[in-house]
Amino acid sequence: MNRRDLLKISGTLFAGSILTQGFAATNTLSTITDTDGTASTDHPLLLHYNENSLGLSPKAKNAIVDVLSNVNRYPDSYIEELQQTIAEAFKMDTKQVTLGVGSSDVIRAVVNQQVYKATQKGQKIQLITPHPSFFLAADHAQGMGIPVVSIPLDTNFCMDITKMKQAADSFDGISIVYLCNPNNPTGTLTSSATIADWVKGANADKNYFMVDEAYAEYITDKNFVSGTSFIREGRDNVIVLRTFSKIFAMAGMRLGYGLSTEKVAKELVPFMAILNISMPTAVAGTASLKDSAFIQQSRAMNSNSLAMTTEAFDALDIKYLPSQGNFLFHQVKCDQKQYIEGMAAEGITIGRPFPPLMQWSRVTLGTPDEMNQFLTVIKKFKKKGWV
Amino acid sequence: MNRRDLLKISGTLFAGSILTQGFAATNTLSTITDTDGTASTDHPLLLHYNENSLGLSPKAKNAIVDVLSNVNRYPDSYIEELQQTIAEAFKMDTKQVTLGVGSSDVIRAVVNQQVYKATQKGQKIQLITPHPSFFLAADHAQGMGIPVVSIPLDTNFCMDITKMKQAADSFDGISIVYLCNPNNPTGTLTSSATIADWVKGANADKNYFMVDEAYAEYITDKNFVSGTSFIREGRDNVIVLRTFSKIFAMAGMRLGYGLSTEKVAKELVPFMAILNISMPTAVAGTASLKDSAFIQQSRAMNSNSLAMTTEAFDALDIKYLPSQGNFLFHQVKCDQKQYIEGMAAEGITIGRPFPPLMQWSRVTLGTPDEMNQFLTVIKKFKKKGWV
Repeated sequence: MNRRDLLKISGTLFAGSILTQGFAATNTLSTITDTDGTASTDHPLLLHYNENSLGLSPKAKNAIVDVLSNVNRYPDSYIEELQQTIAEAFKMDTKQVTLGVGSSDVIRAVVNQQVYKATQKGQKIQLITPHPSFFLAADHAQGMGIPVVSIPLDTNFCMDITKMKQAADSFDGISIVYLCNPNNPTGTLTSSATIADWVKGANADKNYFMVDEAYAEYITDKNFVSGTSFIREGRDNVIVLRTFSKIFAMAGMRLGYGLSTEKVAKELVPFMAILNISMPTAVAGTASLKDSAFIQQSRAMNSNSLAMTTEAFDALDIKYLPSQGNFLFHQVKCDQKQYIEGMAAEGITIGRPFPPLMQWSRVTLGTPDEMNQFLTVIKKFKKKGWV
Repeated sequence: MNRRDLLKISGTLFAGSILTQGFAATNTLSTITDTDGTASTDHPLLLHYNENSLGLSPKAKNAIVDVLSNVNRYPDSYIEELQQTIAEAFKMDTKQVTLGVGSSDVIRAVVNQQVYKATQKGQKIQLITPHPSFFLAADHAQGMGIPVVSIPLDTNFCMDITKMKQAADSFDGISIVYLCNPNNPTGTLTSSATIADWVKGANADKNYFMVDEAYAEYITDKNFVSGTSFIREGRDNVIVLRTFSKIFAMAGMRLGYGLSTEKVAKELVPFMAILNISMPTAVAGTASLKDSAFIQQSRAMNSNSLAMTTEAFDALDIKYLPSQGNFLFHQVKCDQKQYIEGMAAEGITIGRPFPPLMQWSRVTLGTPDEMNQFLTVIKKFKKKGWV
């Protein structure tokens, strides 16, 4: 199924996951081939999905081409190599690595598994999510018919851990807690110490933490501590999610993974497809993980684009949130529809609305050249009073 | 997870799914690059996984290479195109097509969904499978803790529909019925009329039919009627599974699909990952489906290899079952271990044992050249009295 179908299924139950009809058209733009990089309505700049404009690592590309003569064979050994490469990067056992078709696949499996387990035991179960945030865990939970508790971000646009904890503690059943750090779409980091206080003090039989760190590789804040620390402590109620869609520019290859104790990974097995990573994706993942020059380049590009965009915003007196991801959440003064359609008319696609934060917009940090084009339009919009 | 991990999880509960330790080594051979095609212990012929020795369609290969500059983008539109191409091929609506990371992914989702639904309603549920057959549905069912009823094949090595129906009718709950037609590893076709009698007469609230037609494109028997006929009749308790791993030589690309009514497809959504097909796999699938010359070539190769192998077997008085797939189930007179290791020593990997049919072996139909090499070894084995 595609993104829109899923969103349609979740329907009107969860406002955060609705891609409002008026903006649906931007959705199909994601996959138009980039041309010379100059914004136009025919070939828009794609700054709406937090993809990585750098494109695939050349080493990953070569690895894919090299393997094409062999894709009539099942990919077992290539998948094992990828799993080992990830395990080594985290100094974990391969059995702690759950590969997924995007981290979305692992999110799905966790929700499927936890909800089934609770139902089988006759226990109540709910999902707690910050709001707005990445919608997928909530969508799968709703699809399975369990309640989703959306806790608004706090006044700093961070996850409101106190209120999320209250929602869990006051529930007479299991809570799947979705944590997104840094949070999408805000880019804000929630205090690792505050999260750790909750996780370490929580009843492991009643609280299952899904820690989505899709943007972890971009984080520059020295106070960030990855959720993998909970795994190293042997906690059987935590899974950390990572993706190849962002820093590794592999959104179209569909690859992500969960890190957990072996026990947690084993529980997921009946809910994961066998041999779920294609040979091209597996070799691209392995090559990308080992391509430290590309990772460095990817990080440097993001940091340059972030710096030039925030400097321009400062000069123009446009408010934005401190970003620890590959996108920037900034304030707009006009109607969302006007802003998004105005950008589209200039050949730039930006993020969808994230209700209830209707005075904010998310722009993906592309190449510095792309950000220059974006900022040229921003300056026009400033004159119109739109930002 | 890989195949072996899954098999380990299922453990000793289900004999049919155990890859006995002594033969586990053949498992890693699948992904060794083919060389000049001459069998050797260093570069064995891979005739053990029912892969397609022809290799990927050149048009599919080109489509993959063309899309590599774009794989930093999400694949939405490419997935939609694939879904449409499949829907058109079957004259169905795109909403009736559930794409999976291999048909394995759809098998998994069906088991996950049906078992959850029954559990939620407080109903009992079991899975009925022919035995031996493709093990995956049974493995997922066992992983979720529901009973698996294995019904031995009948005296013609076909699915014993009468006994499978009895197992369903005598159960006071839901039965997920796994049908594999033609059956793997036997290659035998079960009468479409007999299957239709059951499906059409069955209580749709108590019987859910999963019709695995992984080898459908190889079928030459004019009496075969695809399970898609049940979908066209609007039955909401049937899903038909197809794969790109066989006729399209895409085992390493991981692509399969389910065909069903829209209602059945919609129920699966919470159990499927969003955007679950990579861009290279999506374009390869679309290109392969449209490459009728390749399909013809693939079918012709299989038919040639089947003819020359069965002729040689006839001449050598080696028994085999009539095959409607890309493999041949033939009788052996020695111990399985001796046969498999003997073949391996000659540089040929063949199928694992399929208990309880320990006097039979499955060989994949490779290219005619590969079959010649296989038959040279068979002639040696004949002299030893092994076949």
